[in-house]
Amino acid sequence: MPAKVFFNGQIVPLEQAKISALDYGFLFGYSLFETMRAYAGKIFALERHLERLAHSAPFLGLPADKANWKTAVVAVLDANELKNARVRLVLSAGPGSLSPDLATCSQPTLLALAAPYVPPAPEVYRRGYRVIISSIRRNSQSPLPGIKSANFLESLLARQEARQAGNEDALLLNDKGYLAEASSSNVFVLREGKLLTPPLDSGILPGVTRELILELAPNLKLAATEGQISQGELLSAEEVFMTNSMIEIMPVSRVGSAVIGGGAAGPVSLSLLEAYRGLVQES
Amino acid sequence: MPAKVFFNGQIVPLEQAKISALDYGFLFGYSLFETMRAYAGKIFALERHLERLAHSAPFLGLPADKANWKTAVVAVLDANELKNARVRLVLSAGPGSLSPDLATCSQPTLLALAAPYVPPAPEVYRRGYRVIISSIRRNSQSPLPGIKSANFLESLLARQEARQAGNEDALLLNDKGYLAEASSSNVFVLREGKLLTPPLDSGILPGVTRELILELAPNLKLAATEGQISQGELLSAEEVFMTNSMIEIMPVSRVGSAVIGGGAAGPVSLSLLEAYRGLVQES
Repeated sequence: MPAKVFFNGQIVPLEQAKISALDYGFLFGYSLFETMRAYAGKIFALERHLERLAHSAPFLGLPADKANWKTAVVAVLDANELKNARVRLVLSAGPGSLSPDLATCSQPTLLALAAPYVPPAPEVYRRGYRVIISSIRRNSQSPLPGIKSANFLESLLARQEARQAGNEDALLLNDKGYLAEASSSNVFVLREGKLLTPPLDSGILPGVTRELILELAPNLKLAATEGQISQGELLSAEEVFMTNSMIEIMPVSRVGSAVIGGGAAGPVSLSLLEAYRGLVQES
Repeated sequence: MPAKVFFNGQIVPLEQAKISALDYGFLFGYSLFETMRAYAGKIFALERHLERLAHSAPFLGLPADKANWKTAVVAVLDANELKNARVRLVLSAGPGSLSPDLATCSQPTLLALAAPYVPPAPEVYRRGYRVIISSIRRNSQSPLPGIKSANFLESLLARQEARQAGNEDALLLNDKGYLAEASSSNVFVLREGKLLTPPLDSGILPGVTRELILELAPNLKLAATEGQISQGELLSAEEVFMTNSMIEIMPVSRVGSAVIGGGAAGPVSLSLLEAYRGLVQES
């Protein structure tokens, strides 16, 4: 539990960071967030996270203030003396009228939270996640999947569905039947030695780690492109892995009853994970 | 602005009803709500609203406690001495760990808010709403549209899209191209003298007013059934109307550039509105 949080301009004890009952983030999910990982006290890819938030904020009519956001996340890490941490920055429309009307929201809420983070053990990376294909599908005909908003219930329900079935996570197809993403990460597949990940218009979040992998792959002499992936192509892939800022690159060794690769982390997934961690070290 | 609210067991001033920064309703939209209308100090169709909430709560792992919910909404109306009001009941998972895990949420948040409600003027009902068809589509392959949750951003974006274009609201098709609902109401069309409304599996909320209309129609010697409605069938309908607890039955006189009926409220819409208001009077 984070002891101190950044709340509307200052660091306060968690108990004092209270959200109005009329905050549109609470009433309507009218908020954006970023989840970032700090290594040795420093947030990795901070600028990319802030840039994504700055890109989405105007779409929701919210102010973009990267300098202020940066102050918030740095301050919350420092105040809690955290080195390896999960950091969440939340920007909501703030309180407004009970009858939904964004024009009544005059003061956005800015919140930064941080908690210690312990990544999955090395053996989890070696054996890989076991995942299901969720019964829930992402909607490629809505802007919502592309925005990191508090409308996160669908993702949590998909993950719960997976865990009830004894798996670690769920992959979601989109409304057209193609692979979209995992409950809270992007997905890559390796086919004929080439990396493929669903395109941005397929109902997915434009993940920061996803973007980094696409940039990193050529350094490893790997072709990496966006492209539609059918369920059959997913299940017969040589390797599959998931990416987000917290788990970095997590190999997938089983999708439902289909064993992927040899039933453990594949060599390409592991070499990308190593390269990614190298990038973190250098930063 | 509601002066007093019901918050976790008691009536308190709004300023004292503060939500934890770690409330899953705020962080992840992990909450359910009901919007109800009070007439002359009494909430109409209260039992149906509580029943819908009690149906959804277990699906999200939240406790169903209708007696407590009823206490909350009655208390908030009384405390604010409200007669004609919008009442919102919110049940969230409550505070939990920063890393999303419902098992860490031990104390759900229960909140009831109320504010005076003034319905649209009679002339608005006579001329009918002008609506657009949103560029956003509802997802019939997700449980989300069928649950009244705080994942409401998509609906607000659709409404904003409509208002920017000078219209009152937006209709949403679903991922398969059939009519689903309006941004926060259900939709009926009249074709060949028969009422038709999209089925529950088409990516819609099971609206309380929708259900009442389906029950009420036979009293007016009107056939009313569920059925898929194409965009062409919508645009060539004899009448179109929207239903929810606040606006009751709102005629639609234009969908995009298509004039519906004579470009004003149709006779069937108005007679249903009258019958619905009779039901309210009797209750």
